[in-house]
Amino acid sequence: MASYFGENIRFSVFGESHGRGIGVVVDSLPAGEKIDLGALDAFLSRRAPGRNDISTARQEPDSVEFLSGIVDGVTTGSPIAALIRNRDTRSGDYSDFANLPRPSHADFTARRKFGPANDFRGGGHFSGRLTAPLCVAGGLCLQILARRGITVGAHLAEVDGVPDRPFDPVSLDRETLLLAGRKPFPALDDAAGEQMRARILEAGSEGDSVGGVIEVGAVGLPAGLGAPMFGGLEGRVAQAVFGVPGVRGVEFGTGFRAARMRGSAHNDAFCLRDGEVRTQTNHAGGVLGGITSGMPVLFRVAMKPTASIAARQNSVLLDEMRETTVEIRGRHDPCIAPRAVPVMEAVLAAVLLDMDQKE
Amino acid sequence: MASYFGENIRFSVFGESHGRGIGVVVDSLPAGEKIDLGALDAFLSRRAPGRNDISTARQEPDSVEFLSGIVDGVTTGSPIAALIRNRDTRSGDYSDFANLPRPSHADFTARRKFGPANDFRGGGHFSGRLTAPLCVAGGLCLQILARRGITVGAHLAEVDGVPDRPFDPVSLDRETLLLAGRKPFPALDDAAGEQMRARILEAGSEGDSVGGVIEVGAVGLPAGLGAPMFGGLEGRVAQAVFGVPGVRGVEFGTGFRAARMRGSAHNDAFCLRDGEVRTQTNHAGGVLGGITSGMPVLFRVAMKPTASIAARQNSVLLDEMRETTVEIRGRHDPCIAPRAVPVMEAVLAAVLLDMDQKE
Amino acid sequence: MASYFGENIRFSVFGESHGRGIGVVVDSLPAGEKIDLGALDAFLSRRAPGRNDISTARQEPDSVEFLSGIVDGVTTGSPIAALIRNRDTRSGDYSDFANLPRPSHADFTARRKFGPANDFRGGGHFSGRLTAPLCVAGGLCLQILARRGITVGAHLAEVDGVPDRPFDPVSLDRETLLLAGRKPFPALDDAAGEQMRARILEAGSEGDSVGGVIEVGAVGLPAGLGAPMFGGLEGRVAQAVFGVPGVRGVEFGTGFRAARMRGSAHNDAFCLRDGEVRTQTNHAGGVLGGITSGMPVLFRVAMKPTASIAARQNSVLLDEMRETTVEIRGRHDPCIAPRAVPVMEAVLAAVLLDMDQKE
Amino acid sequence: MASYFGENIRFSVFGESHGRGIGVVVDSLPAGEKIDLGALDAFLSRRAPGRNDISTARQEPDSVEFLSGIVDGVTTGSPIAALIRNRDTRSGDYSDFANLPRPSHADFTARRKFGPANDFRGGGHFSGRLTAPLCVAGGLCLQILARRGITVGAHLAEVDGVPDRPFDPVSLDRETLLLAGRKPFPALDDAAGEQMRARILEAGSEGDSVGGVIEVGAVGLPAGLGAPMFGGLEGRVAQAVFGVPGVRGVEFGTGFRAARMRGSAHNDAFCLRDGEVRTQTNHAGGVLGGITSGMPVLFRVAMKPTASIAARQNSVLLDEMRETTVEIRGRHDPCIAPRAVPVMEAVLAAVLLDMDQKE
Repeated sequence: MASYFGENIRFSVFGESHGRGIGVVVDSLPAGEKIDLGALDAFLSRRAPGRNDISTARQEPDSVEFLSGIVDGVTTGSPIAALIRNRDTRSGDYSDFANLPRPSHADFTARRKFGPANDFRGGGHFSGRLTAPLCVAGGLCLQILARRGITVGAHLAEVDGVPDRPFDPVSLDRETLLLAGRKPFPALDDAAGEQMRARILEAGSEGDSVGGVIEVGAVGLPAGLGAPMFGGLEGRVAQAVFGVPGVRGVEFGTGFRAARMRGSAHNDAFCLRDGEVRTQTNHAGGVLGGITSGMPVLFRVAMKPTASIAARQNSVLLDEMRETTVEIRGRHDPCIAPRAVPVMEAVLAAVLLDMDQKE
Repeated sequence: MASYFGENIRFSVFGESHGRGIGVVVDSLPAGEKIDLGALDAFLSRRAPGRNDISTARQEPDSVEFLSGIVDGVTTGSPIAALIRNRDTRSGDYSDFANLPRPSHADFTARRKFGPANDFRGGGHFSGRLTAPLCVAGGLCLQILARRGITVGAHLAEVDGVPDRPFDPVSLDRETLLLAGRKPFPALDDAAGEQMRARILEAGSEGDSVGGVIEVGAVGLPAGLGAPMFGGLEGRVAQAVFGVPGVRGVEFGTGFRAARMRGSAHNDAFCLRDGEVRTQTNHAGGVLGGITSGMPVLFRVAMKPTASIAARQNSVLLDEMRETTVEIRGRHDPCIAPRAVPVMEAVLAAVLLDMDQKE
Repeated sequence: MASYFGENIRFSVFGESHGRGIGVVVDSLPAGEKIDLGALDAFLSRRAPGRNDISTARQEPDSVEFLSGIVDGVTTGSPIAALIRNRDTRSGDYSDFANLPRPSHADFTARRKFGPANDFRGGGHFSGRLTAPLCVAGGLCLQILARRGITVGAHLAEVDGVPDRPFDPVSLDRETLLLAGRKPFPALDDAAGEQMRARILEAGSEGDSVGGVIEVGAVGLPAGLGAPMFGGLEGRVAQAVFGVPGVRGVEFGTGFRAARMRGSAHNDAFCLRDGEVRTQTNHAGGVLGGITSGMPVLFRVAMKPTASIAARQNSVLLDEMRETTVEIRGRHDPCIAPRAVPVMEAVLAAVLLDMDQKE
Repeated sequence: MASYFGENIRFSVFGESHGRGIGVVVDSLPAGEKIDLGALDAFLSRRAPGRNDISTARQEPDSVEFLSGIVDGVTTGSPIAALIRNRDTRSGDYSDFANLPRPSHADFTARRKFGPANDFRGGGHFSGRLTAPLCVAGGLCLQILARRGITVGAHLAEVDGVPDRPFDPVSLDRETLLLAGRKPFPALDDAAGEQMRARILEAGSEGDSVGGVIEVGAVGLPAGLGAPMFGGLEGRVAQAVFGVPGVRGVEFGTGFRAARMRGSAHNDAFCLRDGEVRTQTNHAGGVLGGITSGMPVLFRVAMKPTASIAARQNSVLLDEMRETTVEIRGRHDPCIAPRAVPVMEAVLAAVLLDMDQKE
């Protein structure tokens, strides 16, 4: 197993940060689905770099070419292959990292697993840039899910300790899910967003970086989707979410806070609402026993601070086994969490469509 | 996908809480491995109920019969099938939950997915009792890993807000990993353990329950195990861990706290130690880019408070679509986290051996 | 990958010929399906040994215990575990084959893959006895398929060069499919069957064995089941069929004879019949591009002659690397093809239900 | 499951005959493997059309662009994405087949599975053209296997009833395996090849087509590769082979002829040769119990006659459900078997490397 996931639909990501291109093959997506390519581009632009003062200056138009599987804007049922050419590649910036690994990057472990032939330029296949094809795949799924009445959205729940207003786990609706994605900065609360942005800029100006938390949700899911044990929704989402570089934790519903609650406070009593069985609270995050309850699905993702910082750091010359220091040039996002917000939507959409799809 | 996991070794769990038996098939475990059945029993007893004042009185000896794959205490290379007969079954206690779902149990979602034919007695296939065969499978893996120099261990990191002493992410050793498993209560610090135990008993005496956090670790892993993206260690572990009933969150290394750190504090600088490339700190929890770094692997798991509590709770009669209340009789663990400690060891061992194993 | 198959439903076989038992776990079979256990037993008895003068005298009642997944004769949706205890085990007969491999058995290759710890008694996990749990799994699927209007059947198409009347690829119906299974000897034509039986007895009386060909079919399948390329019906069936010991070839429709035909003779022209699109002929065996056409699905399976024969044969003492001879004692089926007829029905049923099933 | 296969290495094929391009993603190929791109091109040219008087005039240079996974001619360990642009596309030739399916093509079943949005131009994703990326993938594997001492080769064993000299199942060597691939027409025996060629031209001149049989082999494999039951080499090869359009049957070793043999003639006695355990004969085709025996691996594949013929054929207008006739314009290979010879080598190489590869 490596750069693919999915049981009924298969998502297979390829590419390296400074190679010829990056892309994805999506096998077994349903046929006959109209794809709004403009909406897809708009979705991709939420992740793209070079758009504002808090993201890297790398200029990548990220224009997608569909090589197969879509004819006249409609899915054919055959595998969809999407290609994004790399343009703004500067291999020279990264030439030494095969031998002098950057702290908290994958250079060292890639070297141990793949040897010196691995492509270390810009993190190679480990680069956050690989989330672009993931967004292509997930963006297709988002459109298909929407047609089935399912809406997926996310927002930046916290940066450097500054919290956004959380999603309401009981009354979450379509509009709120989509709200953050329509803003330049993906927070529900503008004041919170402004404060987060300031913290990111401040860290960046100091050559440092900060982490963040993303909250992701979905509404419109029927009760009964998922499976017990290892086929449960949480595990399938988590497996895919941890495929995104920089993720350090995933929690569903009340998550780690549930560990500090009593059952009498945490249990979600059942009730009738609009003729449907619902729960009065939703500490479960919409999943019981791995299966959707019909309540909003909710989870939170912890992103670490960007590993690329300006400070000179300790490292080891691997070929000589000698301690030395490394300095990372170039400009990098001081916080990857804002651009990871649509990525998380893409991942959830991909997993949900995969679970909802007959072979 | 449902009650199985694993890529090279396949773990397939079966059984229902009050049916004839529960068990596991482990396909493609290496041949010629000696299994210490006494040590396996000792491992299983750490999870078994009815042992002390904080666990359910259900008396299940959990004696394992190996139906295949082990001859004279040595693995044959063929699938290992292990069977645990259910003995102390009281179906009557649970007869109504197909129609009157218990809050925060899987009764409702099981009904929605499988219909009324599902086995609802004691949670059926969704029961925590299914972690017993998981411990059989993982217990076999633990012994094989130990022979390869890899040690897995866990402890109860927190109950009801009371913290245990954490594993040291840099200097964690074999002895510390195994320490909690040798005690009646699985905390590293005895005073903390005593306090946790008191909180659990207190919640139980009030007919309530509490949650907890488990910290899991492994040492002895070589650098280079894992894969980028969706084949990464974190995602594979998370997918399996969420297969355990009651898990609400998984975080690696510094986890959610990393989201509040700056890169300059979070980055793990490389150094040489005993002639090996190591990191000075280990915020990464031993995994970079999905691949082991050679540092201790560390993650934490949030367990929710036991859903079965004494209080009368709101629910819905599904056949009549009428709101009513439900009362859960019988005695249940007021905290499932202590018995889940060996379960997490089992899961990590299973995933690690799966990753380390050639087809 | 090893002793399991299936994408949506997972069939996992375990056990060894002379161990404690053999069995199967069937994960994700649909819930709420009534199982006629009497009909299942009748199906299993078609494969069971010791029934007549052409099969081994080993007395195995093959009584199945369902450990999970079936309550009151109805599937619960949870994994179904079925166990058949071994009773007539005579380990002593086989003690030396780990060191002195029997020609055309798997002793040698098992030794090379698994080492001496493999269970070599009676072929261990490689034994044809493992087709009993396969028949349990497939027998469940046959009943569920029947409820969906799909009938699967097979007959002995050839033994020792004696041909049975073939299935008519265009007008094949339910009755003809089930015909052979209702007879003591599974041939459509009684005279042909009698001749085959005589050849088998003759070979047996000479301490020799013969091979055979089985023809397998299904009707009632909708057009559109399957997938292009590697998800095609043929490949999925073939992968499972080759899992049955003794299979040497699989051909669909006109199969190898198609290689000698011209396109003008082999092509199946489309027509309308009873308001449905059909083909005038069915050289395709009901599958075009990996997807069912709505015509009967048909394939043939070549079974080799039983490897166990009375003659003294050349072999090698592996531990000493010395050439010697080996003699196989005990009585064995002089032809495995008759008992493999229901096995092929089981395999096809399992694959078809797997393909027809939503996750 | 659809257009991908492989357990440790994942081969994912995409593209449509008259779309933008076709290609393949190969995930988890080992890192650090030197790829001789000239040798790869030479291998691809054996499959390419437009080369001689027996293949279609479609001019496709089939030049491969590696988008990722290969840098400076060496594999990086990351997914390898290969793209072949379509150039000589004439969509107009095929515009009606969504409604008027060609006999023995996949038009009808594709319509039933995917609906009218499927890409029917030139067979779309069902086209034999998709074997080009399969050859890219398999061509990479061939080179890596060669470095491990494993040689794969194939030849045209039969066309229109004219047989080539078969591979010797016992003494098959590297040179013989590679012999046919070095000739313009892939037969071992030149006279037989000339006769086959004449038959193909004759059928073509009559607007008709013929089928053929391909024999495929491998030497240099160690004993012990494979697994029992569904993980056996035969099933894995068969599943992949049936993914190639036009395949109707697969047989290992003596195959269907084994069904007519007695055990005393079919059994392969063990002996010592050059200090290794070998078999005196090799009716098994190098596989016992799904596991390689160390003898040459051998199987034969039946290819049907090309479905595209000049004659007017009966079909049905699907939208109107009215019987009519269809005529296929353009020129097509009167026999696909010669160009399928390298395809079978590619498939076997892919499966063997997959089985030989640690995750």
